[in-house]
Amino acid sequence: MQVLSQQIAGAIEKSSWIRRMFETGMEMKAKFGAENVYDFSLGNPDLPPPAAVAAALVEIAGTLDQPLALGYMPNGGYPEVRAKLAKELAAEQECELTGQHLILTCGAAGALNAFFRATLEPGDEIVCPAPYFVEYGFYTGNFGGVLRPVPSRPLTFEMDLAGIDAAITAKTRAVIVNSPNNPCGVVYSAEELAELAAILAKHTAANGRPIFLISDEPYRFLTYDDVVVPPILGIYPYTVVAGSFSKNLALAGERVGYLAANPAMPDVAALMGGVTMTNRILGFVSAPAIGQKILGAALGSEVDVSIYARRRDAMAKVLTEAGIEFSMPQGAFYFFPKAPGGMDDKAFVDLLMAENVLAVPGSGFGFPGFFRMTFCIDQDVIERSGPAIARAAAAARQ
Amino acid sequence: MQVLSQQIAGAIEKSSWIRRMFETGMEMKAKFGAENVYDFSLGNPDLPPPAAVAAALVEIAGTLDQPLALGYMPNGGYPEVRAKLAKELAAEQECELTGQHLILTCGAAGALNAFFRATLEPGDEIVCPAPYFVEYGFYTGNFGGVLRPVPSRPLTFEMDLAGIDAAITAKTRAVIVNSPNNPCGVVYSAEELAELAAILAKHTAANGRPIFLISDEPYRFLTYDDVVVPPILGIYPYTVVAGSFSKNLALAGERVGYLAANPAMPDVAALMGGVTMTNRILGFVSAPAIGQKILGAALGSEVDVSIYARRRDAMAKVLTEAGIEFSMPQGAFYFFPKAPGGMDDKAFVDLLMAENVLAVPGSGFGFPGFFRMTFCIDQDVIERSGPAIARAAAAARQ
Repeated sequence: MQVLSQQIAGAIEKSSWIRRMFETGMEMKAKFGAENVYDFSLGNPDLPPPAAVAAALVEIAGTLDQPLALGYMPNGGYPEVRAKLAKELAAEQECELTGQHLILTCGAAGALNAFFRATLEPGDEIVCPAPYFVEYGFYTGNFGGVLRPVPSRPLTFEMDLAGIDAAITAKTRAVIVNSPNNPCGVVYSAEELAELAAILAKHTAANGRPIFLISDEPYRFLTYDDVVVPPILGIYPYTVVAGSFSKNLALAGERVGYLAANPAMPDVAALMGGVTMTNRILGFVSAPAIGQKILGAALGSEVDVSIYARRRDAMAKVLTEAGIEFSMPQGAFYFFPKAPGGMDDKAFVDLLMAENVLAVPGSGFGFPGFFRMTFCIDQDVIERSGPAIARAAAAARQ
Repeated sequence: MQVLSQQIAGAIEKSSWIRRMFETGMEMKAKFGAENVYDFSLGNPDLPPPAAVAAALVEIAGTLDQPLALGYMPNGGYPEVRAKLAKELAAEQECELTGQHLILTCGAAGALNAFFRATLEPGDEIVCPAPYFVEYGFYTGNFGGVLRPVPSRPLTFEMDLAGIDAAITAKTRAVIVNSPNNPCGVVYSAEELAELAAILAKHTAANGRPIFLISDEPYRFLTYDDVVVPPILGIYPYTVVAGSFSKNLALAGERVGYLAANPAMPDVAALMGGVTMTNRILGFVSAPAIGQKILGAALGSEVDVSIYARRRDAMAKVLTEAGIEFSMPQGAFYFFPKAPGGMDDKAFVDLLMAENVLAVPGSGFGFPGFFRMTFCIDQDVIERSGPAIARAAAAARQ
């Protein structure tokens, strides 16, 4: 007898490529030894948290003799942490933001789920440029939403704005962008975003129903070559930003993020009331108490990003020497190269796997013909993987 | 233009009584001074965490120089914490449980949401004895489910098993019980649960589709007068248990709980695979890393429950002296008395409010004519509230 719903049973059968690679990686490491497997599959930020995080933990420990020390707080989060974060975001987004315009959430993933629960009617559509973070399909599907990806232009990965314009219907509830992008590392330009905002304003007026612009930006802090991620919150009335401290504070497992709304949004108070409620009723209640307190103490600190910059260069060298085509990531910690020899991406990932190299096929991100390799792994592993990757690429070109 | 979905906009309008009281309480405390308001509205466990929690935090702080110290873990939780918890639950539930039969979740609320996401088809019905924890309607409604409460028998609050039997249809997916119960403090007996299991087995066979028995038991540890909460996981093949450490470790804000399944469930592996996935795609990813580590270190510790026992006695004295009818709670930290003089519960709560006493109407728990008062507040407040409550009761009887 069926214990799972049809949708979840089906989703498990298709499964996520990233998780499948994670599991294959565990098996291969057990078999061949961890040092002989080059695992570029999972984006698990591997730098230790900045020192301010440990200092905050010790300080929190000293307060636990108080009643309610780790008890429930308001569903939007501790007011003083919200206020502090609002000040930082106001500068970053060049927007008059207060603590009333953001809630603390269980990572960016929690922010997106709370937002979709609060705003989607069943059958609503969410447009996104592809390649896209594979979980978006699940987050929207949790509440009856349907993802409508629009392929960007290889190899620059600029958005196909005409394509997005054409994909918007009366059922479109949001467009979601992720910049710096997972998996392709692109940072969308201010000009692209302004054009996108104009398209959304046009359709919102025509539909008589807001189409939200969602900016999912856990990698905003992580760019290279002085690339700046343009502010987005204030460029369009119905913009919301989801962010997290998984990467810059290396807190992925502790689940601290936020959802912020443009203070100039008509009915912004209603939206914030809605997401505050859905933050509660989805079971999050709020972001975890200790994570919130850490954020309050460590906001502004970050991991040593120069380590990621050096790894990016090492990875670029390996790919170049293997004759693999790619565009240099402007941010985040992923390469999204083209499968060599015009090969199918899954077939090429199999060739890599035969060399003990784990990568994720682009099909998993709605973009076949490409593959993703993370560089949040030891630089030594990146450098040692060179010959194996070159052999796989040579085999693909044969 | 409508920024919220119709369902959420409607839910906010109805709002939760508990939250409304919370907000009213804040206003009243600002106006009259906190010491002049008797706030029995919100069940925010107010004892400090046991000393093991602070010790665990300091120990965790010492490990943060390691890569991935707070990074992603498997979506079911850290394997060693799962294994440790499984051992404890196996003893508690008298059931052969391993770490594979439970996942760590964002509190019991996260466990229930992950479970409903994994198992519900839109339109599925969930039966529960009333009074019931008000959030159940939201948790099921998040995924298209519909709650079907069946009133228990006042004042003992024994389940109406014939009524539950009659409420089950082809669309019933689960029955959810909460014991010790919020709001009424009842502990269901082994006999009642066995009879309930037999009813579910009969309908499951008839429907050809499992009807789950969900036991939501964050208060299992908190009983009085040597009452024991009977084991439930093994009494019926399709049982799952949701629990949390919000109350016994005073960690409500840090969000650590679990979902465990009967190891003897047919397809238990499929169910666990499903909830592991929904734990991820709802944005929880897993329980928060620090909370999991605290649990691993502090499991078995608990707050000083004798404090709750003394408060219960003080509260019983206040109610008795006011001439208010109630059944003594066997567990948890709530009284659920009858509104005196046969008065409407909301009207009586208004009378209490006029005396600066905050309580929640039973209508908010699907049980009109009664009201809830928590006793997880200072004993001094309970004792000082006596005259005010007596005045309100006298007014109600006039």
